[in-house]
Amino acid sequence: MANMIKVGILGASGYSANELVRLLVAHPQAQIIWLGSQSFDGKPYTRAYQNFFEILPLECINGENLTKLAKQIDVLFCATPHNFCAKILDEGILDCAKVIDLSADFRLENPSVFEQWYHAPHSNPNLLKEAVYGLCELNREQIKSARLIANPGCYPTCATLALAPLLSSKSKLDKHSAKLSKKIDISSILIDAKSGVSGAGRGVKVDTLFCEVNENFKAYSIASHRHTPEIEQTLSKLAKEPITLSFTPHLVPMNRGIFATIYASPSEDFARELHKADSPKNLLTQVYKDFYEGERFVRILEADMSAQTRWVEGSNFVDIAPYFDTRTNRIIITATLDNLIKGAAGQAVQNMNLLFGISERTGLESVPLFP
Amino acid sequence: MANMIKVGILGASGYSANELVRLLVAHPQAQIIWLGSQSFDGKPYTRAYQNFFEILPLECINGENLTKLAKQIDVLFCATPHNFCAKILDEGILDCAKVIDLSADFRLENPSVFEQWYHAPHSNPNLLKEAVYGLCELNREQIKSARLIANPGCYPTCATLALAPLLSSKSKLDKHSAKLSKKIDISSILIDAKSGVSGAGRGVKVDTLFCEVNENFKAYSIASHRHTPEIEQTLSKLAKEPITLSFTPHLVPMNRGIFATIYASPSEDFARELHKADSPKNLLTQVYKDFYEGERFVRILEADMSAQTRWVEGSNFVDIAPYFDTRTNRIIITATLDNLIKGAAGQAVQNMNLLFGISERTGLESVPLFP
Amino acid sequence: MANMIKVGILGASGYSANELVRLLVAHPQAQIIWLGSQSFDGKPYTRAYQNFFEILPLECINGENLTKLAKQIDVLFCATPHNFCAKILDEGILDCAKVIDLSADFRLENPSVFEQWYHAPHSNPNLLKEAVYGLCELNREQIKSARLIANPGCYPTCATLALAPLLSSKSKLDKHSAKLSKKIDISSILIDAKSGVSGAGRGVKVDTLFCEVNENFKAYSIASHRHTPEIEQTLSKLAKEPITLSFTPHLVPMNRGIFATIYASPSEDFARELHKADSPKNLLTQVYKDFYEGERFVRILEADMSAQTRWVEGSNFVDIAPYFDTRTNRIIITATLDNLIKGAAGQAVQNMNLLFGISERTGLESVPLFP
Amino acid sequence: MANMIKVGILGASGYSANELVRLLVAHPQAQIIWLGSQSFDGKPYTRAYQNFFEILPLECINGENLTKLAKQIDVLFCATPHNFCAKILDEGILDCAKVIDLSADFRLENPSVFEQWYHAPHSNPNLLKEAVYGLCELNREQIKSARLIANPGCYPTCATLALAPLLSSKSKLDKHSAKLSKKIDISSILIDAKSGVSGAGRGVKVDTLFCEVNENFKAYSIASHRHTPEIEQTLSKLAKEPITLSFTPHLVPMNRGIFATIYASPSEDFARELHKADSPKNLLTQVYKDFYEGERFVRILEADMSAQTRWVEGSNFVDIAPYFDTRTNRIIITATLDNLIKGAAGQAVQNMNLLFGISERTGLESVPLFP
Repeated sequence: MANMIKVGILGASGYSANELVRLLVAHPQAQIIWLGSQSFDGKPYTRAYQNFFEILPLECINGENLTKLAKQIDVLFCATPHNFCAKILDEGILDCAKVIDLSADFRLENPSVFEQWYHAPHSNPNLLKEAVYGLCELNREQIKSARLIANPGCYPTCATLALAPLLSSKSKLDKHSAKLSKKIDISSILIDAKSGVSGAGRGVKVDTLFCEVNENFKAYSIASHRHTPEIEQTLSKLAKEPITLSFTPHLVPMNRGIFATIYASPSEDFARELHKADSPKNLLTQVYKDFYEGERFVRILEADMSAQTRWVEGSNFVDIAPYFDTRTNRIIITATLDNLIKGAAGQAVQNMNLLFGISERTGLESVPLFP
Repeated sequence: MANMIKVGILGASGYSANELVRLLVAHPQAQIIWLGSQSFDGKPYTRAYQNFFEILPLECINGENLTKLAKQIDVLFCATPHNFCAKILDEGILDCAKVIDLSADFRLENPSVFEQWYHAPHSNPNLLKEAVYGLCELNREQIKSARLIANPGCYPTCATLALAPLLSSKSKLDKHSAKLSKKIDISSILIDAKSGVSGAGRGVKVDTLFCEVNENFKAYSIASHRHTPEIEQTLSKLAKEPITLSFTPHLVPMNRGIFATIYASPSEDFARELHKADSPKNLLTQVYKDFYEGERFVRILEADMSAQTRWVEGSNFVDIAPYFDTRTNRIIITATLDNLIKGAAGQAVQNMNLLFGISERTGLESVPLFP
Repeated sequence: MANMIKVGILGASGYSANELVRLLVAHPQAQIIWLGSQSFDGKPYTRAYQNFFEILPLECINGENLTKLAKQIDVLFCATPHNFCAKILDEGILDCAKVIDLSADFRLENPSVFEQWYHAPHSNPNLLKEAVYGLCELNREQIKSARLIANPGCYPTCATLALAPLLSSKSKLDKHSAKLSKKIDISSILIDAKSGVSGAGRGVKVDTLFCEVNENFKAYSIASHRHTPEIEQTLSKLAKEPITLSFTPHLVPMNRGIFATIYASPSEDFARELHKADSPKNLLTQVYKDFYEGERFVRILEADMSAQTRWVEGSNFVDIAPYFDTRTNRIIITATLDNLIKGAAGQAVQNMNLLFGISERTGLESVPLFP
Repeated sequence: MANMIKVGILGASGYSANELVRLLVAHPQAQIIWLGSQSFDGKPYTRAYQNFFEILPLECINGENLTKLAKQIDVLFCATPHNFCAKILDEGILDCAKVIDLSADFRLENPSVFEQWYHAPHSNPNLLKEAVYGLCELNREQIKSARLIANPGCYPTCATLALAPLLSSKSKLDKHSAKLSKKIDISSILIDAKSGVSGAGRGVKVDTLFCEVNENFKAYSIASHRHTPEIEQTLSKLAKEPITLSFTPHLVPMNRGIFATIYASPSEDFARELHKADSPKNLLTQVYKDFYEGERFVRILEADMSAQTRWVEGSNFVDIAPYFDTRTNRIIITATLDNLIKGAAGQAVQNMNLLFGISERTGLESVPLFP
């Protein structure tokens, strides 16, 4: 098949890889050449994931001799554990194939910030310099010409897209007043996030056994989750000043879905605009609609409602519902995405589409599945 | 758009209709013209199902004046409650559009059997005569030339496809001996079936509230479920003699999926073949593979495993795993499908494809979604 | 049986009442005399709740002629919908029996605040004056001598107990400095709360059907939930100044459990203490341990962990895990309880025990059930 | 505390042990002396199970030097993996303490049957001879005087109790005719069983991760589950002839609960009685009520309904709902219990009560928890 993007995947036995394979099987312009998995080396991929029975007859390879393997493909997806991709990547591979890394290895630009949160020095600081953070809606142009994409984390994709409109100046409102470009007090940002269990991966541990998670709700990594600096990095760039924020993740007894409830105080100038508006809620919504105009995968909810994970499950959409509470003078945003799609494999495909100059939507148009 | 099949749907607010709309939105040769829903009359379809936000901008209509509405479409799907379609259907409508009824109204050929299980006389016995039972893998040729399709129930699709190979003569084994065509003692059939909750529909009742279903398992309609005569009817035709069987449905705390565990004693002749085979399991599996050769949507599991709902969720597949237990001399079959797809909307689209002479697989190739 | 507290329950068909009946059946000093339910009038209680089969042979009554019924009992529990208890309660009833109202009718002291959040004038402002808010750990002495107890809401019980130590002066730290009694900036309080589905009750609505809730996460009543003023009222009393806070409830796909993630900025004085402490976390924990010393049903988690709903399910415990994040200078508290026990029926029994002068723990010592 | 039964538990870190500890903490005549766990040796038990925080301050020991440890206790519960108890048990231990083994080591009387299903020779055939199968309702008298109790499996407890009345002669009907004592064709028994996930234990494996089990339904160990010979052994004794039956277990996405749907054909004589009865259902129900008269923990459901796991969760009850389908001439029984209570820890306590001559119900009266 001419014009097909030839794909190799490392770490094929994880949940994100399963989703990536599913999306690529249906992608009209991509073709999976090989699947690398150390644990399923030499075995049919259906041994790992029976959903591909009679659909994808590939056997897994172990992924060794990657330089040679890279010659067979146009793009390499690394759905490997953290600190794997950074270690194995080199110029030889990058000469053959574009690389989209779904792990955290190339997300933080500053190696010392990486070391602070990951408790080890970065394995490949040279490549770190050229990696582009693949949050498509914000970094589209840089992505197009990159060799190495750091595919964003699930929480950061959700939280960053939900906050970006409040830290930049793309709304009509901003034309009236430059002071309004930063619409929130940047010291007030608080992200209370919730995730389905697939985000924890397929590795075995007591904490993700059915009976431990089912009928339970808990927070984890309070004030110490590694997605925190990732969110801060992108928002700081948008705001053009350093942002420190609180991020608290929780585990929800369901398979898929990221949900973020985000709180921030409006800046004095924006508060004034909100309070004098006929409908503060509508004004705020318009800011979001202006910011995301033309973006296929961001849906701004209009009615007075919460985002809900079920309405994005199985799709590449991010749903964002901004709200302003006049009583407490707080902006409250709910936002949601499917952690395996827009939060991982879907965004990786979106990045691939951008890298290869085809329509960004290709292979990503599926309607959310309900119930 | 030329060559597009124009579609109308009645009963658009139910779960099956949601799935049907989802499949049709992605179908390259179909176009939804109108959606009928009494409860959402005049409201955007997204009010019922927010997953279609920014995807399908249609407003629901109430579906009155159906004769006029039928003129706008090529095919009418009725996803209405039982005894609705039978009442409203007439020659005027059938002159304009093919009809695929997802309710039970036209599934039972014998009006007196209908009356026995539904406790009311049939509303439209004339049309009943010409309805074709739309179990595609068994009735393909009749479906192609029908005007009115009775789309099978979710349980019957699963159980009937799982038993059919044992009641007919399509395997290589059968060439050796005519006596082997009926491979089981027809008085021994027992279907212990399990369903996800979406099969109960979106109507409000205490029994399907979250807290009543979650962390619970129960049987229901013991020895009295209306899908029983539907299964018996198809299997009796295959066996060319009347079959009476036990069917016990259960409710599983999950959204989607039908699972059937089926027990039957092999006929004396087939038992002899099984016991003398090197691998009785393989012999039995081969019977199934022969029977379903070339069928895209039936997957016969080879390894010594159970079917599992998760490996078909979100797809039109039926997975069937036959097993022979020499110790008890019983055939034990596990089979599974997605009740909203192959058990309802997917099979309805498969019927539509057959009715309009396009590839049966069109719009139905999606890979099962996991997790 | 002499010395048994005789109990009547109105609204016996709800989930809270089921739990109340369960606790009272096992209570060594209480005896259920009658169960009032309009929907199960004349039917055995097991028709509503089969768990009591061969345990509680009572038939429901309709609860009319309450003045007469009150004469048979020592205490009346109202597990009725809002605005039912306030309407039917009068001096005749209160002359016969103590009343513990599990609805919201008597929780807000100020009738105008009630009207603002419930959008209707209060039905019984006279009785409102004497009602005692039954949050046992905070109002123990007043409860003992009350006639009418307003049993707190599930969210308020959890959030208020989790915040109380930061707004009063019971810790050893406070002895050093009076300035430390208010340990947080009262304008900074933010409660992101999550609830299992049983909190929504047994009334039928689409929103609480299994398929709508399962595999879904959403917020609801953003900035408008009626538990907000209830929390503000108690905390304002503790702080001796009016507090306005943000409260956002979410729905978790599980049966039981309230979880609150609470954020607040430390006061300047307390921040100084925290930052100079060897272990800010330990200092904060000690404040909580001092405050709740001797309280059987409040457990302060010591290790660096989140509270988890599973460790309190089936019990009357509230688990509270306070944390101080030096990086963001924010206090982050996770707290959890079983919404049907400490959040409803258990606290109601605790109130009954106080009212009748028996040990507060009686009938409430059950160990959390896991898994 | 005088007269307290002193208890030691081996294998304390498993789910059954958690439940056993929970029951014993509330038991008025038992006292836990030590908890043995290799993985939590030297750590507080709350590290394994936080539900016991501020309830049970014990630290785990490793359980070595068991002969010495046995001297401190009256009864030893082994909640250890299979083939652990058989290996470590000896006369020295049995001289000090009664032993209740929750594993399968002493359940099968015939060592060669054990070897056939467990694929290894039995480690302690001498002790096997004296072990008593602790199904309390059937073997009460033998249990009272035993030294070593083989606590039955969860599935066998449910299935055996549900079938026992059809294989013995305790009903009034039997007085009319000896021929009726065996009421079913023993070659026709078929048990389709379903279990919550806690039955799989707390050991880590991919198969019991949340995302693998949630939203999934599957059978497992088809025709090969080790509980099969256990059920056959007890039923064969009752029937006084060897019984071979089909047993198919399935995994349900919920924490607790065993559910069995059991099919059997009535014997010719009993079929005649059933068909001529005014209400075959009532006749069958009466057989069960006669058989279990006076049994506190067996509830025979009268109305025309299925058993449901939710109505026994958290209790020691077994609910059994017998049904006769005249159309197919089949008896269909649904039965349910809580796998961790009546299916494990609860029955172990019931056995302890019998062994020590106290009321069998002690510590086991808790009402099922719902929702």
